[in-house]
Amino acid sequence: MIEYEEASPPVRQVYDDIMATRQVDWINNFWKTLAVQPELLKRTWEGVKSVMAAGALDPLTKEMVYIAVSATNGCQYCVNSHTAAARKKGLTEEMLSELLAVVGMANQTNSLAYGYQIDLDEAFKNGGRHS
Amino acid sequence: MIEYEEASPPVRQVYDDIMATRQVDWINNFWKTLAVQPELLKRTWEGVKSVMAAGALDPLTKEMVYIAVSATNGCQYCVNSHTAAARKKGLTEEMLSELLAVVGMANQTNSLAYGYQIDLDEAFKNGGRHS
Amino acid sequence: MIEYEEASPPVRQVYDDIMATRQVDWINNFWKTLAVQPELLKRTWEGVKSVMAAGALDPLTKEMVYIAVSATNGCQYCVNSHTAAARKKGLTEEMLSELLAVVGMANQTNSLAYGYQIDLDEAFKNGGRHS
Amino acid sequence: MIEYEEASPPVRQVYDDIMATRQVDWINNFWKTLAVQPELLKRTWEGVKSVMAAGALDPLTKEMVYIAVSATNGCQYCVNSHTAAARKKGLTEEMLSELLAVVGMANQTNSLAYGYQIDLDEAFKNGGRHS
Amino acid sequence: MIEYEEASPPVRQVYDDIMATRQVDWINNFWKTLAVQPELLKRTWEGVKSVMAAGALDPLTKEMVYIAVSATNGCQYCVNSHTAAARKKGLTEEMLSELLAVVGMANQTNSLAYGYQIDLDEAFKNGGRHS
Amino acid sequence: MIEYEEASPPVRQVYDDIMATRQVDWINNFWKTLAVQPELLKRTWEGVKSVMAAGALDPLTKEMVYIAVSATNGCQYCVNSHTAAARKKGLTEEMLSELLAVVGMANQTNSLAYGYQIDLDEAFKNGGRHS
Repeated sequence: MIEYEEASPPVRQVYDDIMATRQVDWINNFWKTLAVQPELLKRTWEGVKSVMAAGALDPLTKEMVYIAVSATNGCQYCVNSHTAAARKKGLTEEMLSELLAVVGMANQTNSLAYGYQIDLDEAFKNGGRHS
Repeated sequence: MIEYEEASPPVRQVYDDIMATRQVDWINNFWKTLAVQPELLKRTWEGVKSVMAAGALDPLTKEMVYIAVSATNGCQYCVNSHTAAARKKGLTEEMLSELLAVVGMANQTNSLAYGYQIDLDEAFKNGGRHS
Repeated sequence: MIEYEEASPPVRQVYDDIMATRQVDWINNFWKTLAVQPELLKRTWEGVKSVMAAGALDPLTKEMVYIAVSATNGCQYCVNSHTAAARKKGLTEEMLSELLAVVGMANQTNSLAYGYQIDLDEAFKNGGRHS
Repeated sequence: MIEYEEASPPVRQVYDDIMATRQVDWINNFWKTLAVQPELLKRTWEGVKSVMAAGALDPLTKEMVYIAVSATNGCQYCVNSHTAAARKKGLTEEMLSELLAVVGMANQTNSLAYGYQIDLDEAFKNGGRHS
Repeated sequence: MIEYEEASPPVRQVYDDIMATRQVDWINNFWKTLAVQPELLKRTWEGVKSVMAAGALDPLTKEMVYIAVSATNGCQYCVNSHTAAARKKGLTEEMLSELLAVVGMANQTNSLAYGYQIDLDEAFKNGGRHS
Repeated sequence: MIEYEEASPPVRQVYDDIMATRQVDWINNFWKTLAVQPELLKRTWEGVKSVMAAGALDPLTKEMVYIAVSATNGCQYCVNSHTAAARKKGLTEEMLSELLAVVGMANQTNSLAYGYQIDLDEAFKNGGRHS
């Protein structure tokens, strides 16, 4: 892992942007590990920054979606770090609980849909979009 | 699959509740397939109804989380049926696009976190909750 | 895909063993596809034959476990072919329904365990085995 | 996590039912964590209790299916806690070993089926069910 | 889906780069679908172009890794489109067969490692890197 | 786990073959755990040995594919042990970094393909193979 003090200028530039964007004064292990390959660090951070920014969806909704995917994948680091981020954006215990209830329900019904090999209803083709 | 006309009273009761709750006038294949086992149908529907209802999170956010999990699992039926449901609750093309961008980003960074075997930062323990 | 008629002697030998072991008179697409690489065909079949045979667990239980994994992975081919096999070994509609209910429940509680990042209880270390 | 002593009456009622049903005298971390949301605790426990009870399948078979799904998902908590439960219901080392061999084989052949994009045989349509 | 003829200048610029980089004269459905959100299209293409280019690993090895991940995830579109790409870069039937055998083996042993909850050997800590 | 000193002759024979093939002088936990069932140990080792040997693909490429699948599955033991093995076969930090970038990109685009439910292009049918 590359610490801030030993980072090359291009890596330090990304670190500075991470801290400014997230309003924190430290860099977490994920970025310090990617920094071994400065190009991978830069591309990944720019992707995350752009994707997680406010847009048609607000940032807290995006963090919740991120947590939902990570809980489904079983990624401990990802669940923990994004739950921490989501709390700073307003996630309450009650919201987290409902979020995980939806995640659990989705994983349950997904496997029922797989197991029963259910055919797609005509009305749902293309996600209900009229062509 | 059990059609409405041939359904037993307990199954028909669940079908009626599904149509009333969702304000639709038909039953989709998922429920018609589960109906072979009335108890499984009832329990699954009651769980879905309770979990997807408004609470600390609004119903559209819940549908988006459901889609996120289903896209991660690769469940075609689930993505399609819940995208259709989400559209009825206000999901726009732009929101769907941002949603899937977050899902894609989460899957990418999840596998980077796995591949690099990144240790959890002290500050993220327990999802940033102070104990 | 390699049909029986055009198969080389080593491939035909595996095909014969498949038909004799399973008491069927045809070869399904999975094996006809693997047959392009006779060694992969042979090794995979021998593994399947050995693993799925009666032992401490009976063959029907093994088929149900195979279906459970395949429904979790969302493998359509695998769910369909092994459900067909399980029916021949005695799987009823009711058993299938209960099996899938367990699979759905497991996928639900698995994601809750991930999402809440639950610590392992001392008593469950090593799967409850006394060391 | 909510300990028994500090639990509200509705939570304590679920805890009592868990201990009575499982014939144990303690509550494991999974339930103590869900208890932050009494409704989620109650609904999840009632689902698990109903699904894992004896029916067309015996309870040990259900535990093995649960372990199979959890090993496929890589859920450490789930594998450990249900292996412990399965041992109390009669799971031997030999049965566990055969179970995991089937799980491993299913995961292997599932990915071969995906990788080769194998078409479903006519005879396997609908899981071999005659329509 | 946005066809080339109806594409806006920024989308057309990405399409032109895709065709020039891949030396093809058509655009596949994946990109035509992402084009509904020009920014998502651009960012995803630039990521793919950069990541899949020759570097410390040659492009064919990268395509094989992409296929391995997609077969594990069960993504039909991804397996098919990247198998087609890999063939153009020199993938033979024999290489594909060996590739899928490794993928199958990895999925099998991964689930065995999960199921037996195997502790990491001291010598493997940090992926065998000496600290 | 079965140590070398306490191993029965058939287990010891496998252990000797593992050490000779891999040119190491110790047995890692994975094999010592499988050894509780000598037949599972033997079959798994013979599969791994055969599949990971040089063929149309070189052994280092195979190790990288194995790591890619394991990072996708989130199997910590598997990623660590095979990263260690790959280093001994010539994997550099830069190669590992590019490998994981491809894995991350594949997981990202896989979920986009799922989420948008993209139809397979005619030209990609059968992985681009001309029939």
